[in-house]
Amino acid sequence: MAVYLHDIPLSQAKDIFQQALVDAGLGGVLGEEEMEVSVELLGRVLSRPVWAKISSPHYHASAMDGFCVRADSTNEATLTHPVELLVGEQAVYVDTGDVIPAGFNAVIQIENTEPLDAGNHISEDVRNPDKIRIRASVVPWHHVRALGEDMVATELVLPAGHTIRPVDLGALAGSGHVRVHVSRKPKVAVIPTGTELVEVSQEVRPGDIIEYNSLVLAAQVKQWGGNATRHSIVVDDKEQISRVVEEAAKTHDMVLLNAGSSAGSEDFSATVVGELGELLVHGIAVRPGHPVILGMLDGGGGRKVPVIGVPGYPVSAALTGEIFLEPLLAQWLGRQPHSPDMIEAELTRKVTSPAGDDDYQRVVVGKVGDRVLATLLSRGAGVLSSLVKADGIAIFPSGSQGKAAGEKVNVRLYRSRSEVDKTIFVIGSHDLTIDLLAQYISQEGFRITSANVGSLAGLIALRRGESHFSGSHLLDPETGEYNFSYIKKYLPGIKIRVVGMVKRQQGLMVPKRNPKGIHSLEDLVRGDVVYINRQPGAGTRVLLDYQLDKLGIAVENVNGYAQEEYTHLMVAAAIASGRADCGMGIAAAAQSMGLDFVPLYEERYDLIVREEYVESAYFKAVLNILDNENFKEDILALPGYQVDDIGGTLAVLE
Amino acid sequence: MAVYLHDIPLSQAKDIFQQALVDAGLGGVLGEEEMEVSVELLGRVLSRPVWAKISSPHYHASAMDGFCVRADSTNEATLTHPVELLVGEQAVYVDTGDVIPAGFNAVIQIENTEPLDAGNHISEDVRNPDKIRIRASVVPWHHVRALGEDMVATELVLPAGHTIRPVDLGALAGSGHVRVHVSRKPKVAVIPTGTELVEVSQEVRPGDIIEYNSLVLAAQVKQWGGNATRHSIVVDDKEQISRVVEEAAKTHDMVLLNAGSSAGSEDFSATVVGELGELLVHGIAVRPGHPVILGMLDGGGGRKVPVIGVPGYPVSAALTGEIFLEPLLAQWLGRQPHSPDMIEAELTRKVTSPAGDDDYQRVVVGKVGDRVLATLLSRGAGVLSSLVKADGIAIFPSGSQGKAAGEKVNVRLYRSRSEVDKTIFVIGSHDLTIDLLAQYISQEGFRITSANVGSLAGLIALRRGESHFSGSHLLDPETGEYNFSYIKKYLPGIKIRVVGMVKRQQGLMVPKRNPKGIHSLEDLVRGDVVYINRQPGAGTRVLLDYQLDKLGIAVENVNGYAQEEYTHLMVAAAIASGRADCGMGIAAAAQSMGLDFVPLYEERYDLIVREEYVESAYFKAVLNILDNENFKEDILALPGYQVDDIGGTLAVLE
Repeated sequence: MAVYLHDIPLSQAKDIFQQALVDAGLGGVLGEEEMEVSVELLGRVLSRPVWAKISSPHYHASAMDGFCVRADSTNEATLTHPVELLVGEQAVYVDTGDVIPAGFNAVIQIENTEPLDAGNHISEDVRNPDKIRIRASVVPWHHVRALGEDMVATELVLPAGHTIRPVDLGALAGSGHVRVHVSRKPKVAVIPTGTELVEVSQEVRPGDIIEYNSLVLAAQVKQWGGNATRHSIVVDDKEQISRVVEEAAKTHDMVLLNAGSSAGSEDFSATVVGELGELLVHGIAVRPGHPVILGMLDGGGGRKVPVIGVPGYPVSAALTGEIFLEPLLAQWLGRQPHSPDMIEAELTRKVTSPAGDDDYQRVVVGKVGDRVLATLLSRGAGVLSSLVKADGIAIFPSGSQGKAAGEKVNVRLYRSRSEVDKTIFVIGSHDLTIDLLAQYISQEGFRITSANVGSLAGLIALRRGESHFSGSHLLDPETGEYNFSYIKKYLPGIKIRVVGMVKRQQGLMVPKRNPKGIHSLEDLVRGDVVYINRQPGAGTRVLLDYQLDKLGIAVENVNGYAQEEYTHLMVAAAIASGRADCGMGIAAAAQSMGLDFVPLYEERYDLIVREEYVESAYFKAVLNILDNENFKEDILALPGYQVDDIGGTLAVLE
Repeated sequence: MAVYLHDIPLSQAKDIFQQALVDAGLGGVLGEEEMEVSVELLGRVLSRPVWAKISSPHYHASAMDGFCVRADSTNEATLTHPVELLVGEQAVYVDTGDVIPAGFNAVIQIENTEPLDAGNHISEDVRNPDKIRIRASVVPWHHVRALGEDMVATELVLPAGHTIRPVDLGALAGSGHVRVHVSRKPKVAVIPTGTELVEVSQEVRPGDIIEYNSLVLAAQVKQWGGNATRHSIVVDDKEQISRVVEEAAKTHDMVLLNAGSSAGSEDFSATVVGELGELLVHGIAVRPGHPVILGMLDGGGGRKVPVIGVPGYPVSAALTGEIFLEPLLAQWLGRQPHSPDMIEAELTRKVTSPAGDDDYQRVVVGKVGDRVLATLLSRGAGVLSSLVKADGIAIFPSGSQGKAAGEKVNVRLYRSRSEVDKTIFVIGSHDLTIDLLAQYISQEGFRITSANVGSLAGLIALRRGESHFSGSHLLDPETGEYNFSYIKKYLPGIKIRVVGMVKRQQGLMVPKRNPKGIHSLEDLVRGDVVYINRQPGAGTRVLLDYQLDKLGIAVENVNGYAQEEYTHLMVAAAIASGRADCGMGIAAAAQSMGLDFVPLYEERYDLIVREEYVESAYFKAVLNILDNENFKEDILALPGYQVDDIGGTLAVLE
């Protein structure tokens, strides 16, 4: 009963789709409309080349306020032997932009003329004296803007397919155009389907999925030059979906049918497309996003309307837009498809990639020292935040099985290179104050990208030169001191500065009102208590292990010790959802998920940076923020935080 | 009586303006408004950071269609020893996205389950059988999207100052936001002034200037996130201008007063600003654009309204927008100002620059072989087409007097680097078919930038490696052959291919109906005939000199021989405007300016390319177009053209 997708290569899918478009007469510009040369033209695409109708200037124009003269009448003039010219006959006053009268061929700036009256006295009327006296000669066409200096009639002003920018409006108007032809905007219907979906404005209950793919797709259509109509949510009912799609095809140039494109029990998209027209492709070997449907609907009157069945996972949906929607809109508008800037970057981690798929991996890209680095973000097709945070996409083509750490990849950038230059990698332990720092530093034009890998992994990233700085709270059981001994051990021979950030409370996060009465680590061995742990190398894990050891509790006796999460917030979330009864973490994380908190220990959370970067622009910006009173107040508003050492140098180690 | 501007350095002007803004309480975000999370948010700037209100997913969700199970209940299952689970008790069917019921912690894909009825036969009802049989164990959280996998409540989703893109809409909605706060759009009044101005839709007569600066400025405001109101043209009358500015200040956040910013007799802007408020700056040492006015108006009720007096020359106006308007709008919106991508390029020519000014030179940038080259476009402040054609701006800072050819400059790019990689430099003789080629090749994603320097200078540019190919029509008087002997002489040791383009008619362009009855070169020595010439090295100049020599006419006897223009069209324009009575050129140029044409000679116009580039992507695209029937037809529609040799190789020379 289940339909299994047969994935075909991306290039083949594109070819099939393109051929179907060409066959349907939809391979080029959809149509054009005439529009006035006005601000409304901004961003529109010219459907015809524009040739200058008139020259600009369309007459010989004065480039200065002054007197028109015949250049040869000035030949004799020198500082000591001035020449006098009769106004009206030998000289005529012009303002900038005025026509050079017939018979004249140069302009002398008014500042370089002496106005004289009939009696050879200085005249008050500088613009209309009887004579002018000049003390220098001028060459022909001096201070004259010749006809056509800017554009000559019949010359190409802008080619067809050009997207209009502000200055282009000037060139169009200046070359005599009142109206121009632009490609008409393709009309795209966006239809979200799914019984589990709720509109953005509705309240959500468990099992409800907030429907936002249609927003993303409609915004993509708008951004890329089309007009989107967003339909309200259609429940998973084949007849209803079919009716809505059929209606949409009648009034649109394209239909985006979101979700139901897979092969599940309630995935009707392929069937609907097949019944209403032709199902061309179902399943493409691209990841994420493989359950894409491409088809051609009947729009009535023999009109064909392409349809894309867009997968439901948000990353898949957005990438489907980039892969299929953008180039098609470009084609219909007659403009070039976007060609993102590429940057070569070094992978910080080994990447495995399915050999059969074109694998679109989201990466952050930043420059640490002289190296341009690319770090993979989450690969989950459901993790939209990975696309929000991404600086670009590294494509691992079908046939490749990935790359080793240190290998180069080409990244298609979402941001400009200058923005990438302002990316700050913060790899290490997570703390909410790093998010706060990210907010503050964004005002300075920098962008923090944090990878929450735990304190120890953060130090190792710093050693490898893969991060700009790191947050760390590693307790040394021998000394009770934080971080220093670990830095000496893991970053030998590298000069490192430890900068104070916060002191914060560690303790046990428990559900609201602490139903199981958990008050200390001793409770973790109770049969009714399930713990959720942090990963090895996390400062919190080090702290737990240290304290359990001190209390003589064997980790084998802690139920759930093997369950690991990578951040405080993920531990808090696990407790909030009932997956565990308690976990160690910080008070702020507990509060953020509505949990109670049993305070146990105070610890230091420091920033760790290579000494060589302390004077760099980005770290200066960090230090400035640490010194900012508003920033400190915002931290103190979080529960369990102290900022006594913030911004101070706690140690310089080598 | 005349007011003289006192230019101050740009940085000082910016400081004064900024201080005045801060003093007026206008140094930051102007205000905010709450908007629904919808497509309308696209391009808006967040005025507050957005923290996740709910986690995404906000419950543990199935990542597959299949059966929820307890992972430990599957531990024993192997291929040969399957485990059976009771549906309802030990296994529950879920669709992708469904809630994982309490007590379950993993999902087995439906494809990996065998549905059984009570009698252990295969059940038809795959989603609700009595039991399922499984043949593999699963680990906890297998195929489960854990609560917060994408975003955890309280985490930073997007910082304040972020400009919203399509994917961001998904992240906002997915993290529980129905409405968000964005910066309100600054309201900017654009007021064009000038008695000589006419609206775009009006017919123009000599002396009329088409008013398009307000379009460019209003479009800049729109592009950079503001709302512009464009006022109709105000004549040069101080009272009228003052009234309009005063009104505009009452209802806008900023006023752009276009032109009248200089110190001419009808330049009232500075006076008006001074009378209605405070004149802060009049004259900035920046070129083009130095007569900028910065001031602060009174908007009523103590409200301050900044005003920029924008210079009248179109390049100055557009650059004033980039220098002052864009950063101010960024500040008011709370976003970062645009930081254009920079590219380092080699100057193809010596550049002199006034030492006292920050000199903004428009350049085209392209990659020829391995070198990134920057070539200056016209410096005239009236030459808007230079800004339309520019790939970027090279700034020669005050204090610098320019740079030598071959020196490196940093260019602020208007286009992406990938677009720059598709720029084709065509330097040499101009022909209308090069414009036509530019139009055709733009459809292939390439962009032709042509510099019309004449045939010989084109060959020299090719030798220096400064162009991708060249157009040339240099007649060898010895052989009557075109181009070959020049290539051997000027490009020795370089393998060059000569590709056929067109044969075209050269002759004398004369005013309509040939009022002076000019029929041959012999007429050029008549006392009543003024000739206009091409520059030395132009193929047309070579042809003229050759023919005059053959006829035994001394160039001294040709009246106007010393008047030189750089293109056919400029020669035609000179004749059309009455500057000269005739000039040699091509039939198409004559036709384009409404001139008559006296055909005299037929000549070959070839494309010259380095052999090493013949197989490059750009030249293949050129050859494809030369082979395109539509292209040939378009050429043949021009008067006096033949395309017999088009696309063929005429010679390969070394």
